[in-house]
Amino acid sequence: MSSPTYPILPDPANARLTRLIEGTDHTGARAQISVVEERPLTIYLNRQEIVTAMTIGDYPELLALGFLRNQGMLLADDVVTGVDYDDEIETVVVRTQRETSYEEKVQKKTRTSGCAVGTVFGDMMEGLEGVTLPPAQLRTSWLYALAREINTTPSLYLQAGAIHGTVLCHQDQPLVYMEDVGRHNAVDKIAGFMFRHNVPAADKILYTTGRLTSEMVIKTAMMGIPVLASRSGFTAWGVEIARQLGLTLIGRMRGQRFICLSGEDRLLRDIDPASVPPEDGKHRRKGAGQ
Amino acid sequence: MSSPTYPILPDPANARLTRLIEGTDHTGARAQISVVEERPLTIYLNRQEIVTAMTIGDYPELLALGFLRNQGMLLADDVVTGVDYDDEIETVVVRTQRETSYEEKVQKKTRTSGCAVGTVFGDMMEGLEGVTLPPAQLRTSWLYALAREINTTPSLYLQAGAIHGTVLCHQDQPLVYMEDVGRHNAVDKIAGFMFRHNVPAADKILYTTGRLTSEMVIKTAMMGIPVLASRSGFTAWGVEIARQLGLTLIGRMRGQRFICLSGEDRLLRDIDPASVPPEDGKHRRKGAGQ
Repeated sequence: MSSPTYPILPDPANARLTRLIEGTDHTGARAQISVVEERPLTIYLNRQEIVTAMTIGDYPELLALGFLRNQGMLLADDVVTGVDYDDEIETVVVRTQRETSYEEKVQKKTRTSGCAVGTVFGDMMEGLEGVTLPPAQLRTSWLYALAREINTTPSLYLQAGAIHGTVLCHQDQPLVYMEDVGRHNAVDKIAGFMFRHNVPAADKILYTTGRLTSEMVIKTAMMGIPVLASRSGFTAWGVEIARQLGLTLIGRMRGQRFICLSGEDRLLRDIDPASVPPEDGKHRRKGAGQ
Repeated sequence: MSSPTYPILPDPANARLTRLIEGTDHTGARAQISVVEERPLTIYLNRQEIVTAMTIGDYPELLALGFLRNQGMLLADDVVTGVDYDDEIETVVVRTQRETSYEEKVQKKTRTSGCAVGTVFGDMMEGLEGVTLPPAQLRTSWLYALAREINTTPSLYLQAGAIHGTVLCHQDQPLVYMEDVGRHNAVDKIAGFMFRHNVPAADKILYTTGRLTSEMVIKTAMMGIPVLASRSGFTAWGVEIARQLGLTLIGRMRGQRFICLSGEDRLLRDIDPASVPPEDGKHRRKGAGQ
């Protein structure tokens, strides 16, 4: 696993992550397009099989760690004794010192687990009773700088589309930029990075290209990050949970526009929105409905 | 449950599906926006709890039926003796005549079930050995007419964003237009409708606003529909599975443009793309990356 050198950026040149596929276009002409990969990755916690995720396939160790952490199966103080990835059989085994204490929890999680939109409500909320998000300052100048920087960074999205991005940021600096076919995977990879490298969460901002659903809000809170921002829209329950947890929630970020529906107190409006240049069409990321 | 009257359209006026939420905008002014709801729905098959899905909450019975059908837990010839929705405790119980035969399968599914992007790979592929998709014709004039019609239909998307749409179509006619916070739910609700009302699949087209991932392709094939079209992009595995199953896969539909990466043989180019008007910006749905 790489050392915690900032920033971690997408790697559109990685041949393992995209494939050229030939088809025909609207005129009937042959067309070759770049398409993102999607691979199964089965995650084990010690001897227990937990889940098979469909992922783009980079950072499998971080995905496994972050998934387990965000599901509450791995606790903040857990000692990980090994993370073994086998690319032939597409599995990651996460080994922990205190093995027996998980077995029961894992059994319970797995029994009630299911897939309609990606998570188990009851279990996810369970881990949140103790969560308190720290006070923090969020300058609007940082938000604008981050959006501009992230949207123009070379990425798999710009190359092949059909992929979500999530970025861990500090003030106006993107630090860890993960992409994945599953937006939850992108977040989980960041959680895995933070867990692995003991990255403090209190002064961070999480930026996502995906929608601000209950699950995204819960994951962000589980990670201890007080601010979640997105280009995309909200769900009512995402807003409700954010307000309950005191998380700052910013959505519909496009050019100079955004909406803040929770945690307004952290927001410092230090820049005139009129001074923010409009988005460059070439880099304009779609996804309002997503 | 309603009788099978076509078409089923989104109902943006339904007060249960959206909520006005107040926040602040980029200028600091108070802003009130319409936000889609997101509710848990727990699905039971007879006495077995299967999954808790996060859904917008319309058509819970169809979502339950379609989810179970698409997971292979409900077979085509199963006799459903009851579908009971309780909105207070947010559960749907699907009752079938042959109860005992499911128990084992359900236990197995549930044991291996997980949520990283929404499905269980191994189990999903299992049901596909017997699937043969019928020959069919797909005229490009239908594709263009469908895209125009669907994009301009009043919808929760146009009102509140942050939602996916999936539409069951016949030739150039949208028949059943479902929306949901989870794109898989939208497809499952259509599967539930088809199962409930015995709708033949061989002459249908499925249109989705979401990405053409392996799971979307598998669900479409499970439903017996030979054509899947989308505004959004592809994943490599989605394409691979579509080719393996002989499913026609059309993506990146924008105005006159589209790409066909599988099942080109069904495509009849009966209209000059140059005659297709560009998309109206007002109705242009985002989502290329989704």
